[in-house]
Amino acid sequence: MKTMKAIRFKNRQVITEEAPLPEISENEALVKVSMAGICGTDTEIFEGYARFSGIAGHEMAGVVCRAPGQPGLEGKAVTADINCGCGVCPWCTAGDPRHCQNREVIGIRGRNGAFAEYCAVPAKNLHEIPQGLGTEQAVFAEPLAAALEITQQVHVVNTDKIAILGDGKMGLLSAMALVHASRRVTLIGRHARKLAIAESAGIATVQTAAEEPAQALRSRMGLFDLVVDATGAAEGIQTALCLVRPEGTVVVKTTSRNPSRIDLSTVVVDEIRILGSRCGDIALALRCLERGWVDVSALVEKIYPFYRFEQAFAHARQKGSLKILVDFEKKTGQGGY
Amino acid sequence: MKTMKAIRFKNRQVITEEAPLPEISENEALVKVSMAGICGTDTEIFEGYARFSGIAGHEMAGVVCRAPGQPGLEGKAVTADINCGCGVCPWCTAGDPRHCQNREVIGIRGRNGAFAEYCAVPAKNLHEIPQGLGTEQAVFAEPLAAALEITQQVHVVNTDKIAILGDGKMGLLSAMALVHASRRVTLIGRHARKLAIAESAGIATVQTAAEEPAQALRSRMGLFDLVVDATGAAEGIQTALCLVRPEGTVVVKTTSRNPSRIDLSTVVVDEIRILGSRCGDIALALRCLERGWVDVSALVEKIYPFYRFEQAFAHARQKGSLKILVDFEKKTGQGGY
Repeated sequence: MKTMKAIRFKNRQVITEEAPLPEISENEALVKVSMAGICGTDTEIFEGYARFSGIAGHEMAGVVCRAPGQPGLEGKAVTADINCGCGVCPWCTAGDPRHCQNREVIGIRGRNGAFAEYCAVPAKNLHEIPQGLGTEQAVFAEPLAAALEITQQVHVVNTDKIAILGDGKMGLLSAMALVHASRRVTLIGRHARKLAIAESAGIATVQTAAEEPAQALRSRMGLFDLVVDATGAAEGIQTALCLVRPEGTVVVKTTSRNPSRIDLSTVVVDEIRILGSRCGDIALALRCLERGWVDVSALVEKIYPFYRFEQAFAHARQKGSLKILVDFEKKTGQGGY
Repeated sequence: MKTMKAIRFKNRQVITEEAPLPEISENEALVKVSMAGICGTDTEIFEGYARFSGIAGHEMAGVVCRAPGQPGLEGKAVTADINCGCGVCPWCTAGDPRHCQNREVIGIRGRNGAFAEYCAVPAKNLHEIPQGLGTEQAVFAEPLAAALEITQQVHVVNTDKIAILGDGKMGLLSAMALVHASRRVTLIGRHARKLAIAESAGIATVQTAAEEPAQALRSRMGLFDLVVDATGAAEGIQTALCLVRPEGTVVVKTTSRNPSRIDLSTVVVDEIRILGSRCGDIALALRCLERGWVDVSALVEKIYPFYRFEQAFAHARQKGSLKILVDFEKKTGQGGY
């Protein structure tokens, strides 16, 4: 039996193990992973979120080894839509498996992901990486698609006053996605180093401190038409609700293990709209990356070789770290296998 | 100095006191209250909600005694929009003072309400009660407007599968408002007596019990496109989130003193929209009442004379009571003043 190196989370430990090479069906492709990104959701899964016990990893770039149903894909560089629908429900037949009730989600629900040398992916989920787009950019297609999803859910216009809360990866990507839609985007965060990345991308920023109450932020910045909660913290929604105008919109990007306490009477009295926002359109993200509309290169904190995955993951779990990438091509070096 | 009888809430007690007759400005009208409704918000104010210390009461019908700026109103039977805007901010100039940041709200914020013999109301807030519409129906204009507000915020179509949670006053009114917009409205409540009122109005109902978990309700009823939380309980939102489909809408009508615990990751993963909903258009409500599209008469639990306000309020505070009205015309009887 052929095997591969794969990562498992066990009892809050990162284990590299020998796993069987994925078997693929007629409609699947076997993808040799070139690069994977570590996402906040992965660190949440590590902590128990979504009770997922498979191989995690849902931000990937790779090369198709075999695709029995679509041999034309073989040898192509690809990234993948992570939502694998049943194919027959109303959501799937409408072309949007993201909400299929029986879906598997690569590296998150019922299906192994990209923290392994090989990954089985439904062929229809694959997107060819455009010529000339580097692997280190293409691996951002999934999180950038999630940021762009905001623009697909909310009609953002140029005069909308927008705040993005949180200068982490999703906050920065959301700001980069929204700055194309409105001239009044402000990223609110705590880290000068990260805010500088936004400034370089032409995004206004405001530095705040953990101690600053939401009311004080409101006093110095006024109210916003749209507030994106990308804090990653269960309390972020409270700040967002404090900063949004009556009849305004709060988009929630944060998935936290912890429930949030919300004063719904404010939501009712001010008739606020709260909108959950998840995965987006990978093809749209690839188009933005290919055309240079969004440049994610400054978001890369460090690239680790796969044989140093444990260190990579520990780095990703550090509070305040930006995107940690894992390179599967580099197979030599100290401590390698 | 002329005085009137007025109700105050003091240390969780209902006090009838002699208060000065309201002085009115050029733009106000002095309304002699004929009838007032007791709302869940009033019982919440009694418990401390909104920290309002004035005269409560915001569901009213009355007769205009004086209106210096609009003498044509004098002698007219009226009801009132409760939101009194500053008149100059963007909200007010756009004709919607409901969200004016400097607004007063009759009987709730900064302005005395209708639990008194007389009430001062900005003349522009008054709506004439149509000829032939009884006082007992007209006094429902304010809460019915709040229920109809849902149809102004969400485009409800005939095929939308809609659940209204809670068979209290707001739940029943919401169901009565929505049954005109969709053929698939179900009121979910705990009280056979109240569900029967909905059935009489042609609304499907499902009886549940406090012990029934939201998951069980979901199993037997499936998912809904739109769920209205009219439970009045901070936990209602959790049931609503369990019953709504991905990309569906939860309208929150509940204003509770207590914060709600919400698992936002469900909201994010299922891309749910939560929409706070408050006051609506009084003229629209009067039109629905006048034309008989909504018949609220079955919602009246009991009508008390004003001199028995304390008993009326105690009755309104009883769990499960429907609309308690206070009649200011009846001035004689045992225990009166």
